Amino acid sequence: MQSKNPSDSACIMTDLVLPGETNPLNNLFGGELLARMDRAASIAARRHSRRIVVTASVNHVAFNRAVPLGSVVTVEAKVSRTFRTSMEIFIDVWIEDRESGTKSKANEAIYTFVAVDETGIPVAVPTVEPQTELEKERFEAALRRKQLSLVLAGKMKPSDATELKALFM
Amino acid sequence: MQSKNPSDSACIMTDLVLPGETNPLNNLFGGELLARMDRAASIAARRHSRRIVVTASVNHVAFNRAVPLGSVVTVEAKVSRTFRTSMEIFIDVWIEDRESGTKSKANEAIYTFVAVDETGIPVAVPTVEPQTELEKERFEAALRRKQLSLVLAGKMKPSDATELKALFM
Amino acid sequence: MQSKNPSDSACIMTDLVLPGETNPLNNLFGGELLARMDRAASIAARRHSRRIVVTASVNHVAFNRAVPLGSVVTVEAKVSRTFRTSMEIFIDVWIEDRESGTKSKANEAIYTFVAVDETGIPVAVPTVEPQTELEKERFEAALRRKQLSLVLAGKMKPSDATELKALFM
Amino acid sequence: MQSKNPSDSACIMTDLVLPGETNPLNNLFGGELLARMDRAASIAARRHSRRIVVTASVNHVAFNRAVPLGSVVTVEAKVSRTFRTSMEIFIDVWIEDRESGTKSKANEAIYTFVAVDETGIPVAVPTVEPQTELEKERFEAALRRKQLSLVLAGKMKPSDATELKALFM
Amino acid sequence: MQSKNPSDSACIMTDLVLPGETNPLNNLFGGELLARMDRAASIAARRHSRRIVVTASVNHVAFNRAVPLGSVVTVEAKVSRTFRTSMEIFIDVWIEDRESGTKSKANEAIYTFVAVDETGIPVAVPTVEPQTELEKERFEAALRRKQLSLVLAGKMKPSDATELKALFM
Amino acid sequence: MQSKNPSDSACIMTDLVLPGETNPLNNLFGGELLARMDRAASIAARRHSRRIVVTASVNHVAFNRAVPLGSVVTVEAKVSRTFRTSMEIFIDVWIEDRESGTKSKANEAIYTFVAVDETGIPVAVPTVEPQTELEKERFEAALRRKQLSLVLAGKMKPSDATELKALFM
Repeated sequence: MQSKNPSDSACIMTDLVLPGETNPLNNLFGGELLARMDRAASIAARRHSRRIVVTASVNHVAFNRAVPLGSVVTVEAKVSRTFRTSMEIFIDVWIEDRESGTKSKANEAIYTFVAVDETGIPVAVPTVEPQTELEKERFEAALRRKQLSLVLAGKMKPSDATELKALFM
Repeated sequence: MQSKNPSDSACIMTDLVLPGETNPLNNLFGGELLARMDRAASIAARRHSRRIVVTASVNHVAFNRAVPLGSVVTVEAKVSRTFRTSMEIFIDVWIEDRESGTKSKANEAIYTFVAVDETGIPVAVPTVEPQTELEKERFEAALRRKQLSLVLAGKMKPSDATELKALFM
Repeated sequence: MQSKNPSDSACIMTDLVLPGETNPLNNLFGGELLARMDRAASIAARRHSRRIVVTASVNHVAFNRAVPLGSVVTVEAKVSRTFRTSMEIFIDVWIEDRESGTKSKANEAIYTFVAVDETGIPVAVPTVEPQTELEKERFEAALRRKQLSLVLAGKMKPSDATELKALFM
Repeated sequence: MQSKNPSDSACIMTDLVLPGETNPLNNLFGGELLARMDRAASIAARRHSRRIVVTASVNHVAFNRAVPLGSVVTVEAKVSRTFRTSMEIFIDVWIEDRESGTKSKANEAIYTFVAVDETGIPVAVPTVEPQTELEKERFEAALRRKQLSLVLAGKMKPSDATELKALFM
Repeated sequence: MQSKNPSDSACIMTDLVLPGETNPLNNLFGGELLARMDRAASIAARRHSRRIVVTASVNHVAFNRAVPLGSVVTVEAKVSRTFRTSMEIFIDVWIEDRESGTKSKANEAIYTFVAVDETGIPVAVPTVEPQTELEKERFEAALRRKQLSLVLAGKMKPSDATELKALFM
Repeated sequence: MQSKNPSDSACIMTDLVLPGETNPLNNLFGGELLARMDRAASIAARRHSRRIVVTASVNHVAFNRAVPLGSVVTVEAKVSRTFRTSMEIFIDVWIEDRESGTKSKANEAIYTFVAVDETGIPVAVPTVEPQTELEKERFEAALRRKQLSLVLAGKMKPSDATELKALFM
């Protein structure tokens, strides 16, 4: 299997915030944004692996900025690193001001997907070659996040999480 | 108001075909695709005009290819020409094969939007400068479509629709 | 196959405009109305042909009047003409004032559906016998629309579109 | 306020059973049908009263026949009797066979709505003059149902429910 | 089959009232609440019978209190009595005040479900042993409701409805 | 402000997996489950704080088990620890087997919510007193998760994250 670039899997999902998707403050519901990010990330994972893909975990989502009713929201998802059968997907969420047209970052999220065959058994995926500075940075950090998730799940001894441990020394 | 390029308004909406959106043949419902195209087109119209925009008409939609359940669908919308307060939006719909990754054209549509102020009154929009060959071709054809729509609505005499008339001589 | 009347296929779909279906001006989203009209038209096409039917094209939709939140909307769809395996459906949309009870025309649309068998292959449909003045008028105009759509798709030479050509002479 | 006929309030809502609305046996969910009947009944109540209307109670719904995925369902709602500020709405649900075109009765339901002003206070509604045999029969039975509902709610002594009592003597 | 307690089947469904689910007075639509109650009742029926279950009838629903947008709504459903293959489900609906945290009763409903096998044929269900005072009261009343529903459907002579008849003597 | 128990905020949301919510393997979509957990968590946060609450972050979600179409899913959310204006919510997701009635754990998730006033400004919330062993364990771990999230966001030096650091020594 040939390695791919993050841009090969990039998925851009631009859509409106509709009235049925808002909370009492008239901003996009967290849950609805989580659902959109999941769909965008699954498309990126599928483009990378060309397989059926299923959500394995949501590693981190920060809701830094509220997204008001009527906003144009752009969700961009790209594979940031792979681990045999799993893919870490990095997601950036942008909103744009209607009058000035300027885009600003609203949220960031990290999801993990697993590629499976028709019976649901995990299958290997191509590796990723980060190209830009940001892609390289996210590729590096993905290993620490992977170790962290194994440590938190009790599947790795903290002493073996060498990348992560280095952070605290 | 400064003229803009079609690419300035381009809106890319990539999303899955979900189980609740299919017809008895297990393909995406025409009505659901019409709704997605309307949202993508409204975002393109809004990016071009930086105004509130409302759908004025759907001029033509051809459903050339069925879009099966589970497909990744990309809707691309761009302003193709403007007429004082209205914008013609050209929409291309692509589906991609999961295994090969190849994209193929599924549908094409033309919508017209009008820019309005907060009270709903139409306001002028910037003109468009087509750049590519395809953009230029669509820009030219837009005038014929405009005349056609005025003739069909009884608001223009066929004899005055010079661009259109030329087609039949 | 015996010919049918347009009224044999008439589908009346009366429903409310719900809060989750409105745009920033608090009117029914164009896309939602397009979806309702598609469902109503598909029922008319199915009643006429007694077959599975799929949307082939949307030929024209004019959004003449905004439809406010809370309105009662009536979508009426009828087969206006048939062409071997395809059916042109004419759709009228009405809204009614709650206090006075008066109905007024909000939109008009023309969709084309194709009848197919269980494998998706087009099959012949009964012809239509227009009865009222309006039905006859729409029946006549359908031929011009058919030619127009073939010309625009490059499947008919303008010089062969005799009905349409007559308009411009 | 002038009395009205049941047919003045008749609401016909024809629509498809979509894939997202079915239960594990692939039939329309009871809950979805209850929601459609509520919307149709509210339109009938509104046409009769020309007021804002709210659901007061569902008196009876019998799900006699399953409604399979892809069916065309017709919900017909009409005011059957009124009681100062409330309206009893009788709802008939029909499904039609695609191949033969024959319609058959699937369900029957009775809802009660109350007319209110903008602040939510109940207001009087016109009376109803039943015309057909069926309308007269439903009009008569409505009084027994009204007494029954008052008795069950402990707001009327069984001995005062003369119409109802007669049934058991 | 061993008898069960009503609490064995209890289903608690707590959820928000979302913006897409409200009527023009900004309260939860009757139809949406009917659909939620149907889902909660079907879970209770399924827990009691461990079978596929389908809605047979809605016997009574009183909408005593409006449920405003943004409310937290708790729907509690429990089997109140069974009749060979059918189960009567009693549903209580509560809303809570955000600031004080107090819960108050908003609605009450009674649904009937039937247990079926994979082919849709009704199958016998366990009986119910009411435990609390309220459960015993509802168990007793269920028999009168059953007779009433048979009488209204013309399937039982009023003179044979001994429980019900006693009410009016 | 008086401290509260985790059970004071417990929210139980039991519901079905409907056909419109499944992925190509016929299991509940990750995105739909994320949305349900967000609503359940927001109710728990609201019950604890009696304030308007907004999603601040999703800290971790593990999708350990697929949730098939037609399942009964129970989402249980409880406040596990608070930090002045924010609340960590621990969410357990259970599915139950229809035939045996046994419940098994499907997923686990951790969300953080912030309490705000009507203008969106964060406000202080009551503290939590864990009662059971599991609640105490989650309360302790919440501090490490908080430090971790501050370190990952670059808002705390790893050397100051004493609880977390201890893990790796």
